[in-house]
Amino acid sequence: MLEQLKREVLEANKQLPLHGLVTFTWGNVSGIDREKGLVVIKPSGVPYEKMKIEDLAVVDLDGNQVEGKLKPSSDTPTHLALYRAFPVIGGIVHTHSPWATGWAQAGRPIPVLGTTHADYFYGEIPCTREMTSDEIQGAYEHETGKVIIETFQEKEIDPANIPGVLVYQHAPFCWGKDAADAVHNAVVLEEIAKISFHTCQLNPAVTPVSQFLLDKHYLRKHGVHAYYGQG
Amino acid sequence: MLEQLKREVLEANKQLPLHGLVTFTWGNVSGIDREKGLVVIKPSGVPYEKMKIEDLAVVDLDGNQVEGKLKPSSDTPTHLALYRAFPVIGGIVHTHSPWATGWAQAGRPIPVLGTTHADYFYGEIPCTREMTSDEIQGAYEHETGKVIIETFQEKEIDPANIPGVLVYQHAPFCWGKDAADAVHNAVVLEEIAKISFHTCQLNPAVTPVSQFLLDKHYLRKHGVHAYYGQG
Amino acid sequence: MLEQLKREVLEANKQLPLHGLVTFTWGNVSGIDREKGLVVIKPSGVPYEKMKIEDLAVVDLDGNQVEGKLKPSSDTPTHLALYRAFPVIGGIVHTHSPWATGWAQAGRPIPVLGTTHADYFYGEIPCTREMTSDEIQGAYEHETGKVIIETFQEKEIDPANIPGVLVYQHAPFCWGKDAADAVHNAVVLEEIAKISFHTCQLNPAVTPVSQFLLDKHYLRKHGVHAYYGQG
Amino acid sequence: MLEQLKREVLEANKQLPLHGLVTFTWGNVSGIDREKGLVVIKPSGVPYEKMKIEDLAVVDLDGNQVEGKLKPSSDTPTHLALYRAFPVIGGIVHTHSPWATGWAQAGRPIPVLGTTHADYFYGEIPCTREMTSDEIQGAYEHETGKVIIETFQEKEIDPANIPGVLVYQHAPFCWGKDAADAVHNAVVLEEIAKISFHTCQLNPAVTPVSQFLLDKHYLRKHGVHAYYGQG
Repeated sequence: MLEQLKREVLEANKQLPLHGLVTFTWGNVSGIDREKGLVVIKPSGVPYEKMKIEDLAVVDLDGNQVEGKLKPSSDTPTHLALYRAFPVIGGIVHTHSPWATGWAQAGRPIPVLGTTHADYFYGEIPCTREMTSDEIQGAYEHETGKVIIETFQEKEIDPANIPGVLVYQHAPFCWGKDAADAVHNAVVLEEIAKISFHTCQLNPAVTPVSQFLLDKHYLRKHGVHAYYGQG
Repeated sequence: MLEQLKREVLEANKQLPLHGLVTFTWGNVSGIDREKGLVVIKPSGVPYEKMKIEDLAVVDLDGNQVEGKLKPSSDTPTHLALYRAFPVIGGIVHTHSPWATGWAQAGRPIPVLGTTHADYFYGEIPCTREMTSDEIQGAYEHETGKVIIETFQEKEIDPANIPGVLVYQHAPFCWGKDAADAVHNAVVLEEIAKISFHTCQLNPAVTPVSQFLLDKHYLRKHGVHAYYGQG
Repeated sequence: MLEQLKREVLEANKQLPLHGLVTFTWGNVSGIDREKGLVVIKPSGVPYEKMKIEDLAVVDLDGNQVEGKLKPSSDTPTHLALYRAFPVIGGIVHTHSPWATGWAQAGRPIPVLGTTHADYFYGEIPCTREMTSDEIQGAYEHETGKVIIETFQEKEIDPANIPGVLVYQHAPFCWGKDAADAVHNAVVLEEIAKISFHTCQLNPAVTPVSQFLLDKHYLRKHGVHAYYGQG
Repeated sequence: MLEQLKREVLEANKQLPLHGLVTFTWGNVSGIDREKGLVVIKPSGVPYEKMKIEDLAVVDLDGNQVEGKLKPSSDTPTHLALYRAFPVIGGIVHTHSPWATGWAQAGRPIPVLGTTHADYFYGEIPCTREMTSDEIQGAYEHETGKVIIETFQEKEIDPANIPGVLVYQHAPFCWGKDAADAVHNAVVLEEIAKISFHTCQLNPAVTPVSQFLLDKHYLRKHGVHAYYGQG
């Protein structure tokens, strides 16, 4: 069942250490089959290089495990909350990639300081609010998903246009049309976080790019008027 | 047609990831045959490791594609504007290399803080002005080239002496006598951007080197009195 | 004698350069057999890649060498002091890993700024006080151990919960249930030191996470209510 | 002639890129045969990976080339000045390693902020004064050596105890008992420059270690009372 999706999710998980996004097992990727309503996700605490296709866990959108001998990632409820709230996304990745995590710990959203950012994220990458003691002591991973969703709703952000978020005092989540695309966006976020850190050190008073430049770069790569690539 | 030039441009593009200058496909190299007036350039959105000689695009100086099945880089109009305005250059490279991009986003030119810089760039590496909404909404990539040319003309900089520029809120462009030389200068720019970032953190009041030191280092490697290397 | 322990200690030492924790021979790992009261430790000044099982030194808890032709690490008295004072630990590692050493030289404990830290260290990673001239001119390496122990006693820290320390103006020591676990914690400490350095640059007024978040993350990975991994 | 010395110098040059100390050909190592008064040095502008034993240049202490078809490094007069003034040294290396160069461009000596530094450099690593226009326009590379020597004489530093220097607005020179030892010290300097950069960012008011700690660490590795390593 879901053989093609499992291969994609396995490969996407194995890409995490190759892109320098993870230390040890600090990251997990999932993918969803929207028709069947099933999610394939990394098992908890298994090293990427030893992970095999039969190690992956399959869960439904309510979190019931329907396949796999190993427990799914402890972050599974966050993934599920995002899949339920954001119908447009097909893959999710969570890492503690160091540059993005540095911003998340600082509680600072990443402003659009250049075209590298504008090529992929159509605006500031938001940082969630502090979680309450009730949220932390309750269904924590589920609540983490909810606070992400709240952030996008309150700021009226379309998750298709801003495929990632910084969870305050924690680390980033990214997503995309499938598992590979989610990892692609996680690599981009880490690179933007690195570049823009140095920009803020060189110019603490730096301001974001104009809406014109943001539109130009985002829309030359996304949407009906895109002209980047061979599409 | 242009077999030797194509081989040089292909090899120069493949050097970008080896030198750590690019993430994914974020960079492109071109080379020109001045006699024929033809430019060979990377196709848009193709990974370096899969790129083959037949994937390269050939365009004339007006931007008409004369060979190649794939679309040329979306930055082609910038390359062409530079080739037309700077007759001395034979190769151009654009990347989003992270240290140089950090300076470009900060809107700060890189001052000559040491001999590493003086060995290759005969003065400050300039940063272009902000582009207007008309420029951005018009022929954007062509206008990007024009704002680079304007910068060199207004500051009376010879592009043979300063083989690179920071495009404000975007990223660097470098050039050289051929495609390989352009990539060489892009590696140097990235190294200077890294070293001088740390210098500015250690000494925010740092001032540029004297004209004597700049002359000494630049001219021992360039021009008729050069004595570096086996030339 | 102690063949299994020796293999573990050899392997743990060889992991140091693979994780980028050491330059040259700047680090050492030991492991203890609590029943026999014997410690296996790296020989002094031997490169990791050439180290063989017979090069390892075996000492008792009073520092008498009972096996091995080579002298044990000059830091052996520090290891022994920690083994005597902290009965819960089975392995110790000392490195000059650069990010953690940067904090140690600054004399700043690393506050809990995020969940990456909270997953492994149940509170701030302390920095020892300055050593006195008598301590430095006396049995220096032994006194280094004593000042670490004093730090944990005065701050009422359980070494099982905070498996590492910054020795002021020197570098980190980490420990764990065995040699491999100690190295694992040293890798985590270095990653935390890197991430939190950038956080402090982005937000100099940053404050630690709440006790709720610290509890949640530490206790989902440690203790009777842990639910991370396949355990 | 000098076959053993040539092998050592060739190997030491090839170590530069392996330790990440150089970009392109930005570094050179030499070694001296004190009995014969001859120096073996890297040829100018030749890549390390292609360098062969017959490419090395041999010069006497007055700078006359006595062997080798290729021109010696343009920095040869600096090496020769140091060999003449510092009889204790047997090898010299010059690089533009990025962290040390960051400090050199900032004009800041590197204070002794920890034991990593104290293990190898018995005090602050000095930075030379600005060179005059006459020095720069005269026998520049020879004058560079003279300004290093002046720095050690005026500050009464023994080059055997501080095996390196930052040349202001330029880059580091290091030395040692032979070519390999000089490269070893260059690696250490780069690591210290990196660690201490971060320390100064974390604690701008940081002060050097006590003389007691400096003595302890330097003298446990150097001199008649050393007890580090296998002696």
